[in-house]
Amino acid sequence: MPGLSTDENSSLPTTRRIEALSDGIFAIAMTLLVLNLALPQAIEHTSQSLLKMLTGQLYDFFDYVISFILLAIFWIMHHQQFHYIQRTDTKHLWINIFMLMFVALVPFSTSIVGDYGVNVVGDIFFSANILILGFLFLANWVYATSNHRLVRHNLDSSIINQSIRRTSVIPIVCLVTMAVSLLSPYWSLWILLSIPLIMIFKPFRKV
Amino acid sequence: MPGLSTDENSSLPTTRRIEALSDGIFAIAMTLLVLNLALPQAIEHTSQSLLKMLTGQLYDFFDYVISFILLAIFWIMHHQQFHYIQRTDTKHLWINIFMLMFVALVPFSTSIVGDYGVNVVGDIFFSANILILGFLFLANWVYATSNHRLVRHNLDSSIINQSIRRTSVIPIVCLVTMAVSLLSPYWSLWILLSIPLIMIFKPFRKV
Amino acid sequence: MPGLSTDENSSLPTTRRIEALSDGIFAIAMTLLVLNLALPQAIEHTSQSLLKMLTGQLYDFFDYVISFILLAIFWIMHHQQFHYIQRTDTKHLWINIFMLMFVALVPFSTSIVGDYGVNVVGDIFFSANILILGFLFLANWVYATSNHRLVRHNLDSSIINQSIRRTSVIPIVCLVTMAVSLLSPYWSLWILLSIPLIMIFKPFRKV
Amino acid sequence: MPGLSTDENSSLPTTRRIEALSDGIFAIAMTLLVLNLALPQAIEHTSQSLLKMLTGQLYDFFDYVISFILLAIFWIMHHQQFHYIQRTDTKHLWINIFMLMFVALVPFSTSIVGDYGVNVVGDIFFSANILILGFLFLANWVYATSNHRLVRHNLDSSIINQSIRRTSVIPIVCLVTMAVSLLSPYWSLWILLSIPLIMIFKPFRKV
Repeated sequence: MPGLSTDENSSLPTTRRIEALSDGIFAIAMTLLVLNLALPQAIEHTSQSLLKMLTGQLYDFFDYVISFILLAIFWIMHHQQFHYIQRTDTKHLWINIFMLMFVALVPFSTSIVGDYGVNVVGDIFFSANILILGFLFLANWVYATSNHRLVRHNLDSSIINQSIRRTSVIPIVCLVTMAVSLLSPYWSLWILLSIPLIMIFKPFRKV
Repeated sequence: MPGLSTDENSSLPTTRRIEALSDGIFAIAMTLLVLNLALPQAIEHTSQSLLKMLTGQLYDFFDYVISFILLAIFWIMHHQQFHYIQRTDTKHLWINIFMLMFVALVPFSTSIVGDYGVNVVGDIFFSANILILGFLFLANWVYATSNHRLVRHNLDSSIINQSIRRTSVIPIVCLVTMAVSLLSPYWSLWILLSIPLIMIFKPFRKV
Repeated sequence: MPGLSTDENSSLPTTRRIEALSDGIFAIAMTLLVLNLALPQAIEHTSQSLLKMLTGQLYDFFDYVISFILLAIFWIMHHQQFHYIQRTDTKHLWINIFMLMFVALVPFSTSIVGDYGVNVVGDIFFSANILILGFLFLANWVYATSNHRLVRHNLDSSIINQSIRRTSVIPIVCLVTMAVSLLSPYWSLWILLSIPLIMIFKPFRKV
Repeated sequence: MPGLSTDENSSLPTTRRIEALSDGIFAIAMTLLVLNLALPQAIEHTSQSLLKMLTGQLYDFFDYVISFILLAIFWIMHHQQFHYIQRTDTKHLWINIFMLMFVALVPFSTSIVGDYGVNVVGDIFFSANILILGFLFLANWVYATSNHRLVRHNLDSSIINQSIRRTSVIPIVCLVTMAVSLLSPYWSLWILLSIPLIMIFKPFRKV
């Protein structure tokens, strides 16, 4: 069993360690999203002016919710993949580091959408960030499962394929969102919220 | 035992993983509170001006303390609930993600109260954040325990009910705080500090 | 064994959980210190102006180092205490929450010292933060060990007393620092760096 | 077995605890890098102006990528070293605390490079940060392995030497980068990206 022995002898971070770093980066990225909600410096301190400022940030609140939910979905997928992934190797490790790089980028992408409101460039930048994350998650899974490289040698191929189908939902929805952004940037990011809804349907559902 | 087997076969994050992510988000939210304490840009750098600025931030310090204590209470409750919760399912997972979304929002809500001082809108925004958190914690517990869905099948119903009573303290105190804010916003948030005090009393106390 | 059974039946966070939250808050507070090093907005982008700005921040770098080292000392002490503390109760839990509140405050106290340079108020504010932390660590240990409340019933009293002596170093050095600050605020915070040096000496050393 | 018993009796943080704090600080430092990407305040909110601002930040994006990758390399090395390090002592603990101090400094060093663009002082400051980190990692390993101080007494010396060779790559590349910066600061930091490439080659590769 060369795969297993590689894992035992190697001094690469274990999958448990990768999960710990990932949990940390997910938690921080999700919490840093709130920094985008900073109110503009108040000129007068009345209830009316505060109420006006808060309602003026409605779009920012929506961005906060959507980014938080998307990061949560990626976090859930991360655990679903590592539920089956038992080993790591150098290439797999670097796929994961690039995944984390784009996870940590999400607060910045969110801030662009928030600061610029209805703006096709901002929407596409944000969708592209999610798109790349989707592709990296797909790459992570395909790399780990092809020839059962990093998973149990008898892992059922139906589980492998179902998970590919499920992960593919994200890039496809991102591409649709980008296309709609080009036509009309008004609330096009709402489309991304269809990701968790689509995943509930049978062909994409985790049993 | 379908419940147990669901847990073993499923690739949902384990409750241990949810706790790890939650601990991370609680720790970061609690530490980010300190960013609200930033002093205004100093014009002169004398001891007197610094002293004046620090005392001018007394209200912000109070907000820091109250938010830190409230988050600590929710963190304690989180562990109390997960002490009994043994499994998770998709709905339960999403209740928890929304809980974390409102935990991560607390530094922002705190900054609103701080920047606007005595202001009914800010106080109600902050209380509403805590109120929603209270309801989500209640929902988490009721969902997990109804029909012993995610807890041990022989968990004593007195423990379940006692915990419902205990968790209900938070939304009730929040509603009182919001009502008092409408009448008089001066220091109405002090009322929230009664939450840990009430919880010490017998009917709400954890044995 | 009432002590042990209390621990098993209770739904208070375990000491393992308190340690996890504490590790998180220590890690974040230590890393947030770096935010105090932000350079002022550059007017011209030459090597000379950057060099001047960096040397102008020498005092801030010193503050970064001292705060990082002090937090590291508290983190080490935290683990030394929890090496022996086996249980928790409500009072002990709240001592720890207040400890974490003042740990999370350190980046703010550091920023005050940095922004105001040589200033007796800033130095005393910072020393007071460390002083309170020292007292809370002392309280944590005294509470946990008096009558062997939360430690092994046969824990050697020499270990208990040695640790009290060791922990007392911090408040005493803080009081000296505050006194020196009143006389001369120039570099008085250097005195705090004597804490790790004193701890190396036999009567305070951990075996 | 004095080594083992030292570890059991001591109340120093365990290597597991040091790894937990380190994972936290690495995760936060890697995520804080994104704060350097903040866009300048927008004057007009058009797609063109946003696009211009984003392309104007291309250099900042490059800095983000390079810092993230370097921190990831150090994180991997950290685990490789602690794969073999089984105990800790006071000196080793302090080497690690200084390592973490310079890990937490990386977001600041990155911000200097970003804000000042092509500037020899910024490039050298950044390279010096990485250089010191490289030396501290080397010191950590040499201290732990000389006389098998903190590692298994029968750890193969070929593993020890291979790891010294591997760790030495970083300071050497940093010194080259600093020399090139002095001659020509244009994109000299690209040279740092050769670190992961060099490590793939046989004499430096982890088996």
